[in-house]
Amino acid sequence: MAEQQGRTVQGVNPRSGEKVGEPVPETTAAQLAEMLAAAAAAAAPFGGSPPAVRIGLLNALAGRLDEQVTALSDLAAQESGLPLPRLTGEVARTSGQLRLFASVVADGGYLEVITDSADPAAVPPRPALRRWLEPLGPVLIFGASNFPFAFSVLGGDTASALASGCPVVVKAHPSHPGLSAELDRLARQAVLDAGLPPGVFGMVFGDQPGVDALRDPRVKAAGFTGSTAGGRFLFDIAASRPAPIPFYGELGSINPAIITPAAVAARGAEIAAGFAGSMTLGTGQFCTKPGLLFLPAGHGLDGALRDAVGAVGPAPLLSERIRGQLSAGLAQLSARGDVEELQGGTAVPAAGSWAAPELFRTTAAAVAGDPASVTQEHFGPASVVVEYAGAADLLAALATVEGSLTATVHAEPGDGFDLPAVLARLREIAGRVIWNGWPTGVAVTWSMNHGGPWPSTTSAGHTSVGATAIRRWLRPVCYQDLPDELVPEGLRDANPWRLPRRADGAPE
Amino acid sequence: MAEQQGRTVQGVNPRSGEKVGEPVPETTAAQLAEMLAAAAAAAAPFGGSPPAVRIGLLNALAGRLDEQVTALSDLAAQESGLPLPRLTGEVARTSGQLRLFASVVADGGYLEVITDSADPAAVPPRPALRRWLEPLGPVLIFGASNFPFAFSVLGGDTASALASGCPVVVKAHPSHPGLSAELDRLARQAVLDAGLPPGVFGMVFGDQPGVDALRDPRVKAAGFTGSTAGGRFLFDIAASRPAPIPFYGELGSINPAIITPAAVAARGAEIAAGFAGSMTLGTGQFCTKPGLLFLPAGHGLDGALRDAVGAVGPAPLLSERIRGQLSAGLAQLSARGDVEELQGGTAVPAAGSWAAPELFRTTAAAVAGDPASVTQEHFGPASVVVEYAGAADLLAALATVEGSLTATVHAEPGDGFDLPAVLARLREIAGRVIWNGWPTGVAVTWSMNHGGPWPSTTSAGHTSVGATAIRRWLRPVCYQDLPDELVPEGLRDANPWRLPRRADGAPE
Repeated sequence: MAEQQGRTVQGVNPRSGEKVGEPVPETTAAQLAEMLAAAAAAAAPFGGSPPAVRIGLLNALAGRLDEQVTALSDLAAQESGLPLPRLTGEVARTSGQLRLFASVVADGGYLEVITDSADPAAVPPRPALRRWLEPLGPVLIFGASNFPFAFSVLGGDTASALASGCPVVVKAHPSHPGLSAELDRLARQAVLDAGLPPGVFGMVFGDQPGVDALRDPRVKAAGFTGSTAGGRFLFDIAASRPAPIPFYGELGSINPAIITPAAVAARGAEIAAGFAGSMTLGTGQFCTKPGLLFLPAGHGLDGALRDAVGAVGPAPLLSERIRGQLSAGLAQLSARGDVEELQGGTAVPAAGSWAAPELFRTTAAAVAGDPASVTQEHFGPASVVVEYAGAADLLAALATVEGSLTATVHAEPGDGFDLPAVLARLREIAGRVIWNGWPTGVAVTWSMNHGGPWPSTTSAGHTSVGATAIRRWLRPVCYQDLPDELVPEGLRDANPWRLPRRADGAPE
Repeated sequence: MAEQQGRTVQGVNPRSGEKVGEPVPETTAAQLAEMLAAAAAAAAPFGGSPPAVRIGLLNALAGRLDEQVTALSDLAAQESGLPLPRLTGEVARTSGQLRLFASVVADGGYLEVITDSADPAAVPPRPALRRWLEPLGPVLIFGASNFPFAFSVLGGDTASALASGCPVVVKAHPSHPGLSAELDRLARQAVLDAGLPPGVFGMVFGDQPGVDALRDPRVKAAGFTGSTAGGRFLFDIAASRPAPIPFYGELGSINPAIITPAAVAARGAEIAAGFAGSMTLGTGQFCTKPGLLFLPAGHGLDGALRDAVGAVGPAPLLSERIRGQLSAGLAQLSARGDVEELQGGTAVPAAGSWAAPELFRTTAAAVAGDPASVTQEHFGPASVVVEYAGAADLLAALATVEGSLTATVHAEPGDGFDLPAVLARLREIAGRVIWNGWPTGVAVTWSMNHGGPWPSTTSAGHTSVGATAIRRWLRPVCYQDLPDELVPEGLRDANPWRLPRRADGAPE
């Protein structure tokens, strides 16, 4: 474990480039060791706590977020450069997410209780079995910068892990250290007030302490939202541990949107405006930003697209690092002879880390021939229009598009286009397929899937948003022939937690 | 891809060391490329097939296994050295497993259908969402040697993957190439007879072609049952691919059994006999063999254990490689000054790969001080008695025991021993906790869990036996606002597959 004596994390206002608040000290090795010991010690009592305890904690966290929405949003606005209304809305989304997981715990179906009664006459005799899911133990969550509430300290990863009964250690994102420290205090107080062991929640500041935590044998799983490069780096660490752990990373996603000729004819201008709004939402810093817009050749929307994108002014990106990465990626894209700029970026303020929307154009044949730098995510307000000659041409280009969180289709009723073939490809590569809408905006519901094949996530089998996100932090345990009084409370015959159960093969 | 021109896999009879049948050629690079292309081409039609198609295939495979039980068991006996009655029983278990997965498909709950209706009044407006699980695509299964039917070509991994709608490519275990080739023919014929694309089932012979297949981007997940070293090697390959894939490996498991003083007093002789039977079952080549027997100091069972273990004669191990690994592991164990041999191995035939049961003895304090070579699996008929002075001493030793498929407790009603603390530790490290029984024998049921923390598996969140094993080969896909006629058939409003569904948060 590498000691990082005296290092700090400093918040910066992306609008001005000026420092925000005091620097936050990085977590020392001694502090990390203490935090992980506390998390490990909390695993059994918290993991075995009855549903009411976790429901109470989740609702208390939601209530405190809502109470402090003004102060927290103000601080988040300073550190992230995101507009205040967006941030107050995000707090509401985040508290709603905590409450959704409280209702998931109350429902109990997520525990997947399955029992089989003994059959002494079977060959070989069948024992009595009771199986359900139990929490994995301490979970390490890497907060994201682009949603300082909904995908960070008390975001979906933390909410689902706490709901499952796993203690959580959050690695604070360096882009909002002040907000993270504030949310850390809020969470620790809620844990104490709930009468839970303090190890139920902890926070790590600093990249190296975060890596040290990921390597620690007491950490049993990790969640992450961020870049493909950062996620791959951490995924490799998790996979190469002496005892590997699951690493649920949400990385880069290109989110193709396919517009059929009939859709262009019916509502081309509306589509151009909707697309421009979606690709520039949050200064293009949504995981679900549509990065590729497939339009039929001769679509006639150049002017509408230019106008709609050009009408969106520059805005600050979350950090200087993100601005640098966007510039480098777009330089690669522009360097291709078969990619042209449809709408160039306008002038941006010199201070801070601003960017203006940019729109590029190429052809499906060019993408099919060489997808490099076109089909990879450019995080920020930049997308590429891909013009296709027909369904075959479109499908050849889509064959080069890798895993994505979303894929969108705009079409018309009775559309003559080859929709079944297009949809077949889209469900192969995407976790969510959207019809006549836009991918930004992820409803927090029971059915939502926010996941997809690599590189959009490290684990296509799971989601980081929606009720089923809790499944990532659980593992099955089966009890064979144990006396009723010795199995965990929730599994007892009398079903004191009123859990839905499957018994002898059929739902009860 | 490394070409292995002209190499073959030769079956050997472990009873005699003599060759069995003709050598089977290794899969060439061209054959592998063709097989994987066929598997990829089969993924969409097979993955989208209605339940009846997969139910039919699974039941047909089960029927053919049962029809050919005599010939197949004979061949398996020659290549594995396992007794014929055990193998005929294993065929029945394997066909039963295929039929269980047919009933899982018929039940439909495994698809986890969740829908949310639109709410235009919500802020932001909520779209209509339908979410379920879809197959990952071609799956690579590494067959095991110790269960040539139940954990090999048509074993639980293959049955669950086919049930999910994933095409399967099996890497044949080199210990039973003749049987594998026979089962390959059986499976391919069943696929053709079902009218399915031939790519639904394929088989790879040879270690390097197996690794080449694991690296191929068309393979979307892998299953494995085998040694910790072999599983780690393959896990690392799967994790380090440009696009990593899930690798569900069942590796080494020590399966501790804890006997309380009251249990010794009540039925010590019975316990000694039961333990000896369990640890020598299948010549100790069960994943769930109890490798550690914790007994209270002064248990007085030395004679009973010696007699029971000594009464079990030598038997052939599955291969010369396994005999070599067992010898090397036991040499390390014996070299410890604090480990003594309680019952030594008797003489074995010179030809073939025979072994006689061996039982060692040490103390809980010795294990707590240095668990090396005691708490690691020795695959074969060898176990270690660990004598403990009291509950604290026992718990200190158990703290060094890593993840295990099973953990067993023998105790008595009203036992004064600290059972809650012992059980709390056991559920932390094991996937199945057994009361007053033995871990060998894994019932194939809805509730069974055959999994556990590392190193017993690579993925504690999943099982390789029981109905829920199907979850490994699936990923969620969510459809937003799609017209009813364009969503996959099973998700349509009319529910033509009669799937259990959760709608707007509540089971329908």
